[in-house]
Amino acid sequence: MTLDLARVRDALREEARKVDQALRGCLSDQAAPEGLRASMEYSLLAGGKRLRPVLCLLCARLFGLADRAAMPFALALECIHTYSLIHDDLPAMDNDDLRRGRPSNHRRFDEATAILAGDALLTDAFVLMARAEEPPPERILEAIRIVGGAAGSAGMAGGQYLDIRYTGGERAGLEEILAMQALKTGALLRASCLSGAVLAGAGTTGLAAVKAYGQALGTAFQIADDILDATGTEEELGKPVGGDAAKEKKTCLSLLGLEKSRELAETKAAEAAEALRDFRGETADLLRGLAVYTARRIT
Amino acid sequence: MTLDLARVRDALREEARKVDQALRGCLSDQAAPEGLRASMEYSLLAGGKRLRPVLCLLCARLFGLADRAAMPFALALECIHTYSLIHDDLPAMDNDDLRRGRPSNHRRFDEATAILAGDALLTDAFVLMARAEEPPPERILEAIRIVGGAAGSAGMAGGQYLDIRYTGGERAGLEEILAMQALKTGALLRASCLSGAVLAGAGTTGLAAVKAYGQALGTAFQIADDILDATGTEEELGKPVGGDAAKEKKTCLSLLGLEKSRELAETKAAEAAEALRDFRGETADLLRGLAVYTARRIT
Repeated sequence: MTLDLARVRDALREEARKVDQALRGCLSDQAAPEGLRASMEYSLLAGGKRLRPVLCLLCARLFGLADRAAMPFALALECIHTYSLIHDDLPAMDNDDLRRGRPSNHRRFDEATAILAGDALLTDAFVLMARAEEPPPERILEAIRIVGGAAGSAGMAGGQYLDIRYTGGERAGLEEILAMQALKTGALLRASCLSGAVLAGAGTTGLAAVKAYGQALGTAFQIADDILDATGTEEELGKPVGGDAAKEKKTCLSLLGLEKSRELAETKAAEAAEALRDFRGETADLLRGLAVYTARRIT
Repeated sequence: MTLDLARVRDALREEARKVDQALRGCLSDQAAPEGLRASMEYSLLAGGKRLRPVLCLLCARLFGLADRAAMPFALALECIHTYSLIHDDLPAMDNDDLRRGRPSNHRRFDEATAILAGDALLTDAFVLMARAEEPPPERILEAIRIVGGAAGSAGMAGGQYLDIRYTGGERAGLEEILAMQALKTGALLRASCLSGAVLAGAGTTGLAAVKAYGQALGTAFQIADDILDATGTEEELGKPVGGDAAKEKKTCLSLLGLEKSRELAETKAAEAAEALRDFRGETADLLRGLAVYTARRIT
């Protein structure tokens, strides 16, 4: 496969633009108090790659489902991701003042509002999913189980708990770090892929391929993110460079060093692309390109 | 209707006991980190009236659905209620050190763990609901929409946001206070009733009756709770008496005074019982008794 990374990047931006457009409307029909909604939208509409929604849409499209039908889940995934960023930034957690180049939610508003905006984004995400109209109800329920399982105590929330424990000094080797990151970041990325495929009614073989793709992509993405945190520019990151190191966060980078981390990210990205080897067409090409692009950002 | 309140109380305790038994197992099949689960269970298994699950079970039973089938929603409602208590107690919110006679979650563990335990209980609640096996998927999805809508930005989270604004000094009269409490406490109580009836496949007339019941009961319960906060004993409350007044919380009690608040609670309880006038049998009697018992606690 020859890969034009600039084309991949442009195609992903185009997908993200569609998501952004849909996100702008997704909280507007709610009878929520004005100030709470302002805080939710401040973080939800702050831009970003929209990686999780894009993965969900692409994996649904891979099995023939229209964007329209998968969109409620795509939006819900971004709401859940945004809630996790708001809560992670809180003083009791990672205590970050900046996010995407702007004051973090609790700095722009206050701590109580930030906690509630996160709570509400998480809750409203499930309402968005349960309101999906198109695929049969069994598929919607299965996709909710996948997304919910990936976000809860045995997924993202559990991973964030472990991250805080490890950062606080609890011993953890490479295996523990990878397992923690698989929960904290990997689970929701994998669920983004899998929920799209489930909504589209993919069969056993298709689901297995998408699962393997999501798993490997999640690892590649997390390592790339850790490397960017140390080697990127403040402009790219939207926050000061070296935040992980300053907080003595345990990451692959801190355990393996730069060279080996880069290698591992490349290997995982190739593994992700390889998992979709049996798929043809534009969508499969873009998903493969996304995996390679994720790792190449850092080399 | 002659009403033996001691019998009502005993019957409600028996229902709560069933819920407690089911709650003990509901987090155990999760691959969550041990410490996070301990924090979730610390608050979830701390006792209490289990009012929301009991309402869900009774309203499902009213239309012929077995407890077994409604139980996932009953448990999920208690998980959501517990998450809201954990987050409400946080220093940035109501800053409460005691809950049900024990240190609040963030005092027993730490703030980060308490935030994550709340997040995880909320998320896992939706997984519990989506895993329900018995009623047809359409009913499960409708019940998820009802519960999620009542918990999110246009429900409980929105109400807590307004409560904090009003406590912080924002002007609010009786109408605003009642509307805030209808979101903060009323919405989830109403959803507890309504989700049970929806799971059981109740028709339009039945749903309207249950909705009216839940609405009136929610108001009666909240006013009774406000009065108990001022007039109960520390043993009954599990925390110091007069917490609302000390925090200058705006409640019906602070606006109407004790006598008028008691009257309003009684009126609303009678309204709730009256909403179920067309239903016969033990379950309907218990639901009517529950409404009256809720208001009588305070007289």
